[in-house]
Amino acid sequence: MEVNPCNIPVKVGFTVPMRVSRKTKPETTIVNVGGVEFGGTGIVVIAGPCAVESREQLFDTARSVRKNGARVLRGGAFKPRSSPYNFQGLGEEGLKLLVEISKETGMPVVTEVMDTRQVELVASYADMLQVGSRNMQNYPLLKEVGACRKPVLLKRGMMSTIEEFLNAAEYILNMGNDQVILCERGIRTFETATRNTIDLSAVPMLKTLCHLPVIIDPSHGTGIRWMVPSMAKAAVAAGADGLIMEVHYQPETALCDGHQSLSLDEFDRLMTELKRVSLAVDREISV
Amino acid sequence: MEVNPCNIPVKVGFTVPMRVSRKTKPETTIVNVGGVEFGGTGIVVIAGPCAVESREQLFDTARSVRKNGARVLRGGAFKPRSSPYNFQGLGEEGLKLLVEISKETGMPVVTEVMDTRQVELVASYADMLQVGSRNMQNYPLLKEVGACRKPVLLKRGMMSTIEEFLNAAEYILNMGNDQVILCERGIRTFETATRNTIDLSAVPMLKTLCHLPVIIDPSHGTGIRWMVPSMAKAAVAAGADGLIMEVHYQPETALCDGHQSLSLDEFDRLMTELKRVSLAVDREISV
Amino acid sequence: MEVNPCNIPVKVGFTVPMRVSRKTKPETTIVNVGGVEFGGTGIVVIAGPCAVESREQLFDTARSVRKNGARVLRGGAFKPRSSPYNFQGLGEEGLKLLVEISKETGMPVVTEVMDTRQVELVASYADMLQVGSRNMQNYPLLKEVGACRKPVLLKRGMMSTIEEFLNAAEYILNMGNDQVILCERGIRTFETATRNTIDLSAVPMLKTLCHLPVIIDPSHGTGIRWMVPSMAKAAVAAGADGLIMEVHYQPETALCDGHQSLSLDEFDRLMTELKRVSLAVDREISV
Amino acid sequence: MEVNPCNIPVKVGFTVPMRVSRKTKPETTIVNVGGVEFGGTGIVVIAGPCAVESREQLFDTARSVRKNGARVLRGGAFKPRSSPYNFQGLGEEGLKLLVEISKETGMPVVTEVMDTRQVELVASYADMLQVGSRNMQNYPLLKEVGACRKPVLLKRGMMSTIEEFLNAAEYILNMGNDQVILCERGIRTFETATRNTIDLSAVPMLKTLCHLPVIIDPSHGTGIRWMVPSMAKAAVAAGADGLIMEVHYQPETALCDGHQSLSLDEFDRLMTELKRVSLAVDREISV
Repeated sequence: MEVNPCNIPVKVGFTVPMRVSRKTKPETTIVNVGGVEFGGTGIVVIAGPCAVESREQLFDTARSVRKNGARVLRGGAFKPRSSPYNFQGLGEEGLKLLVEISKETGMPVVTEVMDTRQVELVASYADMLQVGSRNMQNYPLLKEVGACRKPVLLKRGMMSTIEEFLNAAEYILNMGNDQVILCERGIRTFETATRNTIDLSAVPMLKTLCHLPVIIDPSHGTGIRWMVPSMAKAAVAAGADGLIMEVHYQPETALCDGHQSLSLDEFDRLMTELKRVSLAVDREISV
Repeated sequence: MEVNPCNIPVKVGFTVPMRVSRKTKPETTIVNVGGVEFGGTGIVVIAGPCAVESREQLFDTARSVRKNGARVLRGGAFKPRSSPYNFQGLGEEGLKLLVEISKETGMPVVTEVMDTRQVELVASYADMLQVGSRNMQNYPLLKEVGACRKPVLLKRGMMSTIEEFLNAAEYILNMGNDQVILCERGIRTFETATRNTIDLSAVPMLKTLCHLPVIIDPSHGTGIRWMVPSMAKAAVAAGADGLIMEVHYQPETALCDGHQSLSLDEFDRLMTELKRVSLAVDREISV
Repeated sequence: MEVNPCNIPVKVGFTVPMRVSRKTKPETTIVNVGGVEFGGTGIVVIAGPCAVESREQLFDTARSVRKNGARVLRGGAFKPRSSPYNFQGLGEEGLKLLVEISKETGMPVVTEVMDTRQVELVASYADMLQVGSRNMQNYPLLKEVGACRKPVLLKRGMMSTIEEFLNAAEYILNMGNDQVILCERGIRTFETATRNTIDLSAVPMLKTLCHLPVIIDPSHGTGIRWMVPSMAKAAVAAGADGLIMEVHYQPETALCDGHQSLSLDEFDRLMTELKRVSLAVDREISV
Repeated sequence: MEVNPCNIPVKVGFTVPMRVSRKTKPETTIVNVGGVEFGGTGIVVIAGPCAVESREQLFDTARSVRKNGARVLRGGAFKPRSSPYNFQGLGEEGLKLLVEISKETGMPVVTEVMDTRQVELVASYADMLQVGSRNMQNYPLLKEVGACRKPVLLKRGMMSTIEEFLNAAEYILNMGNDQVILCERGIRTFETATRNTIDLSAVPMLKTLCHLPVIIDPSHGTGIRWMVPSMAKAAVAAGADGLIMEVHYQPETALCDGHQSLSLDEFDRLMTELKRVSLAVDREISV
């Protein structure tokens, strides 16, 4: 839990915004997502498919990840895609499926919202609203989710600095909503062997400067399925408060991000390993 | 040890050079540095000051890190410095001090060589030659250390891709020297909150593509003393075969890189934590 | 005008989307902004303050830039700011001021729209809608401005590749609106001496792959007032179809981006120089 | 010639080293390369093949570029190549060919030196020593070329900041050699459509901070043959003191960098265009 074990004065070249700063509020904020708490000693795992594709795909995946220790379900209904010709998500139909399996499994749901006009709709279904990487500096959207009384999962922009990330969170807190989880999901660099370069140093940096829980997305962070376990374990060792991972019951046939999705078995094995690493840093996976 | 637990075919957009490729040689190469082995189940810690500054500074630091579990001593005698007006190292005098304390403590020594003309001299003192980040594509130097029969610690260029890193190692192996350890030490990105961005995903990537041991330098990787412990633990969880860390008996007065050097006590505490994380991934710190 | 004088087959590692591709439509699209044409032989200069601050500030600046050859007026009414505590723009009041001075000077107006809910409002005042760098992958916004029958100035994301930029434009064309101008405004790199690194090679690359007009923003591209003239001239020599520049009647007192705004006199001198460079590449500044 | 036409106080976040600073020496240093002057009002073009491959290839190329206005001949004899299995250059045999055609055409020769042990040899043949991008922070090499009384062409590292670039030049001047030309040759960014991202803003920045001549390498800067003309013209408009370009009599068959080499005809046409752009910024191509 101690991310600055040296007790050395922390200096960065910018001002940490007031409301997110750990100087303003020394204790870590507990974010309550439909009964599941982020920010305590437990490490919470969010899992599920990149996109909701069908009842079978979602339900099989959700039941399996719950059985193996995931506490929160992820799944995209409105998908931000680079090309207008790619699968754009099932929309409200996807939200309904998420709610149905959420009730069955007891897992609260996090799903992305991309448009200020959708916030009310998505919030009527989801337990936590995700603001995606491409929208980290979509200020009207940040204000709207700040005005909405649901927890927010804020993903770091793929080329956004720590300073900008904290300021984006400040927009949400400034609207009166302090239920914000920060998520590092890989940044863009010159390296092309991986889809992004996962910046695990963001974990101690963010946790030292800011009182909000910090989680890691090793799926987008690497973009490569077989690298997810290594980076998930590293994230826990680095002090992350949770993980969000893409899992698919048939990664080879996924409509989106199959190359970075774990299979159900791989997720199961990884959870066993994560439990051991968690204990080694005096924490435990919330199950 | 298993870095590709999914057994998924590994595809990268380039050809891994022949001699370093794990396809050519499936088992990990054991690199023997003065009796200390890298690449087995043990995790080896290299520690010491950035630069050799004085007998007292070096000896006090070396004795302390050895007592707390370091197996190999680092210390720069010839220093690559951005400005010609910065401290450039003690030169051969520094090498002599390294050898003296090496004999006392039993720790083999790694130190940087920057010039083809120095290789013979440095090799006559050191147990392992370091090729630094700025020289990763200094091809005459790579050939020269390849011709020399000493192990080589090859640091990734701060601007170099995984493909280029593997090709640089290939230069050394192509001269007949396969005793090469690869070291990720942070890459340059847009982020300025840290000195570099440590790319821990390089660990599973390099270990999957290549049979050489891979270690991490969290001191340069972050450039920030209080972040070193988090990243060191994360490196071990990610599968690294070792760590190289800057430790100084009085970080505040260091002539070089004091802001990223652990104190003797901090190193002691970190080693205790690293032992636990190592066991959680079925390895152990070599002591 | 010939950006590929070698007549060499152009190969890039991605597929250019159908509707924006020059293979689909070999001739450059003429974009008509309130009577001012982009994409012909003339080079069009857009100028004005970063943000509309007051009647005096806007009107004095607008009259001066028009007199010295600007054809289109820029000015932000809704401002995307990193911090919630920075000046956020005058909103609709700013739009009204823009229309008033537009009528007086005969310059059509371009201004940023950040929220899907604002598109109709902003389009009722402006002659061209700007989608800013931070919103380049705000897909709902791209669709909304695509559905609106006004020209769109699409700025490249500071973290976006040429491929993503072209796909963002494709979103707009796919909604039936081909009146799109592409604007390179600097990308984010490791270099910190400038605010961004202006990528002038985007001009020949975009003009070769795509039939839309391409303009350059040297103000954001450098972030440094005294560098704007050099980069503006370079942009014209590289083949840009236009420029967008921040000009302020009192840069020292600007509420936003004063450090990168030209004074009225500097703009005047620059226009004289740009005329000469334009002629040297067989084009001329539209006046 | 005036790169800071606004007469605005120049602030950067670092200290410009003493010997290279324009504050120390306000007038631009004239670098004399075998009788050809860089740093005056004339713009000097360096051209030739990437590598010397054969007598015919070098001589045909050299005669043609001289006829069309090149003043200095480039050609690599010792080549830094990413892979040890790529063509490494003809070595001293290449140097002899360079000297032979230099005498015939009257063009002084610039060629790369990679190893401190080669400096004396290369200097005995060449008129100017090139320190390549990968060696920009090879400090022993910088000291050695500083001690040698030949002009030095110092290329910016592909991921080196302006601050580091100026410090590398300072190493050379600090050894007593002020005959240094700075060359921007593209930096490494996230963009993959081009080989590198050419940073033309380096021209006004370097010329403002430092008194050394600044030239641009649009061949490496883009890595794409058909983009070279646009960027060469832009470089001149931005204020560059010269250009260095790869030209090959048969680009399709080149052993190295053929994809970025101009043909003889393309070079001829480009020189005609460059003359016009030069005049538009009150300079002229030295012929």
